[in-house]
Order: sequence, then structure tokens, then C-alpha cells
Amino acid sequence: MSYFSSNFKLGILGGGQLGKMLLYETRKWDIYTRVMDASEVAPCRIACNEFVLGNLMDFDDVYSFGKEVDVLTIEIENVNVDALEKLEAEGVKVYPPTKALRTIQNKAKQKLFYVDHGIPTAPFSRFAYASEIKDSLENGGLDFPFVWKSAQFGYDGQGVKIVRKIEDLEGLPPGECIAEDMIPFKNELAVIVARSVNGERTTYPVVEMEFHPEANQVEYVICPARIDAKVAEKAQEVALKVSEEIQHVGLLAVEMFQTQEDEILVNEVAPRPHNSGHYSIEASYTNQFEQHIRAILDLPLGNTRSKVAGIMVNLVGAEGHTGDVAYENMDQVLRMEGVTPHIYGKRQTRPFRKMGHVTIVNENISKAREIAQHVKETINVISK
Amino acid sequence: MSYFSSNFKLGILGGGQLGKMLLYETRKWDIYTRVMDASEVAPCRIACNEFVLGNLMDFDDVYSFGKEVDVLTIEIENVNVDALEKLEAEGVKVYPPTKALRTIQNKAKQKLFYVDHGIPTAPFSRFAYASEIKDSLENGGLDFPFVWKSAQFGYDGQGVKIVRKIEDLEGLPPGECIAEDMIPFKNELAVIVARSVNGERTTYPVVEMEFHPEANQVEYVICPARIDAKVAEKAQEVALKVSEEIQHVGLLAVEMFQTQEDEILVNEVAPRPHNSGHYSIEASYTNQFEQHIRAILDLPLGNTRSKVAGIMVNLVGAEGHTGDVAYENMDQVLRMEGVTPHIYGKRQTRPFRKMGHVTIVNENISKAREIAQHVKETINVISK
Repeated sequence: MSYFSSNFKLGILGGGQLGKMLLYETRKWDIYTRVMDASEVAPCRIACNEFVLGNLMDFDDVYSFGKEVDVLTIEIENVNVDALEKLEAEGVKVYPPTKALRTIQNKAKQKLFYVDHGIPTAPFSRFAYASEIKDSLENGGLDFPFVWKSAQFGYDGQGVKIVRKIEDLEGLPPGECIAEDMIPFKNELAVIVARSVNGERTTYPVVEMEFHPEANQVEYVICPARIDAKVAEKAQEVALKVSEEIQHVGLLAVEMFQTQEDEILVNEVAPRPHNSGHYSIEASYTNQFEQHIRAILDLPLGNTRSKVAGIMVNLVGAEGHTGDVAYENMDQVLRMEGVTPHIYGKRQTRPFRKMGHVTIVNENISKAREIAQHVKETINVISK
Repeated sequence: MSYFSSNFKLGILGGGQLGKMLLYETRKWDIYTRVMDASEVAPCRIACNEFVLGNLMDFDDVYSFGKEVDVLTIEIENVNVDALEKLEAEGVKVYPPTKALRTIQNKAKQKLFYVDHGIPTAPFSRFAYASEIKDSLENGGLDFPFVWKSAQFGYDGQGVKIVRKIEDLEGLPPGECIAEDMIPFKNELAVIVARSVNGERTTYPVVEMEFHPEANQVEYVICPARIDAKVAEKAQEVALKVSEEIQHVGLLAVEMFQTQEDEILVNEVAPRPHNSGHYSIEASYTNQFEQHIRAILDLPLGNTRSKVAGIMVNLVGAEGHTGDVAYENMDQVLRMEGVTPHIYGKRQTRPFRKMGHVTIVNENISKAREIAQHVKETINVISK
């Protein structure tokens, strides 16, 4: 077990919230960590062994950072993949592998990958430039409504927009994008698959996601999803199929639609710990962060079952509030049964900004759902 | 909720393993932390906001450290209480309060406190100097066997010795001590009580401890204790009585003996997170570290129930091994169901040194006990 007592160094690209939660697991196992982020006040700055200021999209920054570590992983997809490829060629273990990362990083490529590999996904068109969308609408190649997605650099609900009329196209970035059919889904589901270096795989239970209609951010993640066992099984199968085809190492969070006909369509994937798995810190035998570490260090994978039902509520900035953050009614929330707030420590709030999350665990999922609603209605992320 | 978004500073005296686990909770809630420890390589050095090198027993070091924080807590009892008293008088919130800490810090005082407050404890004699023990043996005031305990600075099984014959007294430190009757107990039990600033109190379930016969260190902590409900109730009552009398703020771990007649005798207490509560990270709704933070920040206390049964195994250095540490068979341990190792990151091992702990959780306590045994027999903390 060389990681626990040697000169081994784990590199993490990105020093945000996911990285911060990952770092607790490395501390638990005394794994030496080196983190790079562009922000002087990145949440990972404390709790890692070495912090390096650098631009994740810059070839030289990523390359020189990566040369100093044994295994390199990411907590965000928007990193310089050319640098990672060079590092990989020179013997650094890069997980997810750059081939998988390249496919995932570009949403158009990701969609084409699904089509090429027989993975069910919503119909879509790819455009090299956003301006081509109008032509396509005019000559009948595309109809309202549809979902515009930027091919690159989408994150946290940014880079995605529902387009219902021509005016909605105004102000969209000009670059490569896709226009995807809007799926009138019954449910949005997600499955996290862990795959270790040696190919061992395991899946977490299917979770059910409820989105905030305007902000396009997850409001509740519910584990296990309250769906038919057959649908859950199908979702697991589809997630495993994506995992198998994409050959990731580490976690792969697979977001899916359950259609009105109970078909499963893959929406998108993330090759790292994911918001849809935060509930696992409190609810699962092995949380997603520990599992990611196990997978990329080629350790045996842990038990993905839940001890109790878990629901996650994202804490986002309230509308009409911009400025120094305050968490209203936190005391009341701490008084509720089985409730754990996670505060990300961002100093400034703005409408819909992700400021933290709250996990609710309970033996009874209906009870957990009630408490989650209560949390949501009680807490307020406002400006002072 | 001022802690989450203000200039509030929490001070922690001691930068060891308990502090390290406490720091994860402060990170989770974005609480600013300042830690003092005498070691340059203290585990808390990373993961706190500010680290200060200083001697915990030095008045000036503790005083000047404490002047910079709003709330001051400890992760070890051996700190300069005079400095804490001055800080307390000057308005720093010191938890545990110095009065409680003074009583606990000196084991002779602690025992006298139990007698004075009608708290059941094993019979004992107090000696100002260890040399007085021989006189007492000679004139029939004391009989073999008994348990010698240093009044001050005992920690982790140090400062405690079973004395069966006159030769066992050789080499004992000369200072203040007690000689306590050996209790032929059925079980060693512990209850952690949390008490917040406003007096709200809650207890964790009774746990059962199994000690290593030679090292005098806990080998297994089992939650819940496999004892009669009436005995458990009595243990809880006694623990609450100690808590009430001692007026601590934060956690109080109360270690007790269950006698052959099912009486409960208080062995000793610790006013902080405790080894007997480590299982709570994986097994409880609110782990002991979060609960300590809640208590000292006067937040509502969390749910102390368990999600599943939990067993903790201390990882101690194997006999005959001194030097750079290696963890043998860690891979096999990670393959076992519901097993979470915590590696403390000490570079050097020596016989019986606490190097980490492993938690085993399971719906079924007998199954957990089996796996715990398996963990214990599999893992080996050796020198390379």
C-alpha cells in the first residue's frame, strides 16, 4: 500500500468545492496532494499539501504541474487536454484518461459518441457556429422548442438554454454548439459508475433529480429514485454501457432522462465526483469521493449501497440578492432531524449561485423528502 | 449564523489526530480556524486556516494564541490552564470551561470530585509522591494488585500501570498519583455526552470497549454495546450525572466499568472528542466532531442515533517493529464490506503506537464484529 507511506503524490486539477470534498478523503488516508487552481482563494488552498496557482486551460501551467505528480485527476473538465496527453505519453497516470476526457469535454463530440456506440440519447443537430441555427430554422431543419448547448465550457447550468422563439437566440455565444430535442421526460435520473484502473466496476443506486425551472440547476437529488425497479435496472444498464464504451477511470456520473414511454436517454456525463453524488457522504457506505480515490489509485472499490435514504438540496443564492452572503435560519435547519449543511465558503452571493448543499438522511424516504422540503423553505441564502 | 460568513475565529489547542478530524467539520461549515501545536509536522498543519507553533503547556504561548480567537477549544487536556483562566476572564469563550478542565486534568482531583458529588467510582488512595505508595503497602493501607495512575499528563495509556508486586513500582515517575482498586469488571463501557453553551444535552449510545491487555489501549469499540438495556440505561444516567456536575461545554466522554454485580463505576472522563466516538464518523447521524462544534458554538445539537452498527479497531504498531511505517494487507482490508481505514500519517511506527483506526459498519452487529476481527487479523502495521 505504497500511497499511505511513501513519496507518492496525487495531483488534482481544479481547487473548487469538489476538490475540497475529495481532499478530506486524501487526508483520511494520508495521501500527499498537489492542487492547481487559478484562484488565490480556491477552497482547496487549505487542506492540500501543495497549492499551485495556475491556469487550468494553459498548456504550460498544466504540463509543469503534472510533471511533479504520480497520478493526476480533475475536479472540473475544463482543463488543457493537450498538456494531459503529453503527460500521459510521458508516463504520468492521468485519470480520467485523456481520450475519454476529450470525448466528454466537447458536448457535440459526446453526443456523436453516443450515436456511434448505440447509446440512446435525444436527437440533436450539431452546428460549427451558432449563426447556423437560424439558417436551419428557416429551411425547416430545426423546430422550436429545442435546447441549445454550447459544445465547450458549459458548467453548472451555464452554456445551456431552452430556445422557444427566435429572440431566445440573442446573446448566445457564437461558437460550436448543438440543438437538442426537448424531451418531455417523466424524470431526470443519474447513476454514478466507478471504474478502477484494473477495470473493476460498480454502480451507485439510481438517483432522481429535480431541477429549478429557471436556473437549470438541480434543486433536489433523491436516493434511491422513487421509480419502478425495471426502469432503475435499465438506467443502471445504460450507465454501465456508457462506462464500458468510454473507458473512463475514476467516477463517471451519467445523467439520463426517463421518457414518458419509460425509455432511458443519456443526457450528459461527467468523469469525476458529481453534484448528484453528494448525498453519498452521509448516506452511502462508501462516499463518491473515497470511491474516486479508490478507483484512480487502483484500490478495491467500496460498497456503493446506502445506509439510509438520502436527499440533497442545493443551496443557491436567493433572487434579488447580490453581495456579502448570509445564511438565514441556519439554526432552525440544524435543529431538523438528520440534516447536514455543507457551506462552500464563497464570500459573495448572487442569484442562483451554488453556495453549498444540505443533505437529509432518514430511514424513511418520504420522511426525508418532507424534511428536505422544510429545509428548502426555511433556509435563505441572502446578502447582508 | 455568524460563524458561516463573518470574521469569527475558532482556536484549537493541539494539532493532532483529533484536531485533524475536527477540522473537517470546520471546513464543511467554512469556519475559520487557528491551531497551535508544538510540532512542525502536526497533522492539523494543513486544513486549518492559521497554524501557530507553540508549547501547549507554556503560559505565554497559550495566552497570546488565545487572544486572537473568539472561541477556544482543546483536542488534548494537557494545556496551560492558568493561561486559559486569564483568557476566560478577559472574555474569550473557553470550552471546556477552565473549572471543568482543572478538575479533569488532575486524576486525583477528578476522583475526589466523583466522591464529593456522589458519582460511583472505584475506591482509591491519593499520594503526593509515588514514594508514599511503599509506606502504605508496608503499613497495610494498600494491597496488591492495584492500578497506579499518574495524577497528571497521562495520555493514551501512558501514566497508567497495573501493579501486582513490589518490583512493578520501579521506574514509576515520582510525582502525585493515585492507587486505585482493580475492578474485575464484566465490561468497559463509554458514553459521550454533548452539552452546548445553553445547557442543551444529548448522549450517544453506550459503547463497549475491549482493551489490549498489555498496551492498555482500546482494541475494539463496539456501538451499541451488547449489554442489557437496564445496564445501558444506568450507564447513560451516570454519564449524564457526571456531565451535570462537571458543567462542561462540548463533549464529555465518560469511561465506565460495568462490575460483576452490574454496578456502574466511572473510570475517567475526557472533555473533548474521544477515541471511543470515532465510530460515529461512519455510523452516526451526527458524528462526535460535528457535535463538539455544534456544542461549543451554541448551535442546536444533532441526532446522536446510529444509522447502522459501528465497530472501531485501533491500528497500533506491531510488536518488534520500530521505524518507517508500512501498512501490510491494506488492499485486503479495503475489499471487506463497510470498512473505512483512517491513516493518521505518522511516519514512524513503534510497538503499540496509535497509527490510525478502522471503522466497520454493518446493519448487523454480529456481522460487523466478524469483519472487525478479520480486519484486525489481516492488517499489520510494521516497519519497512
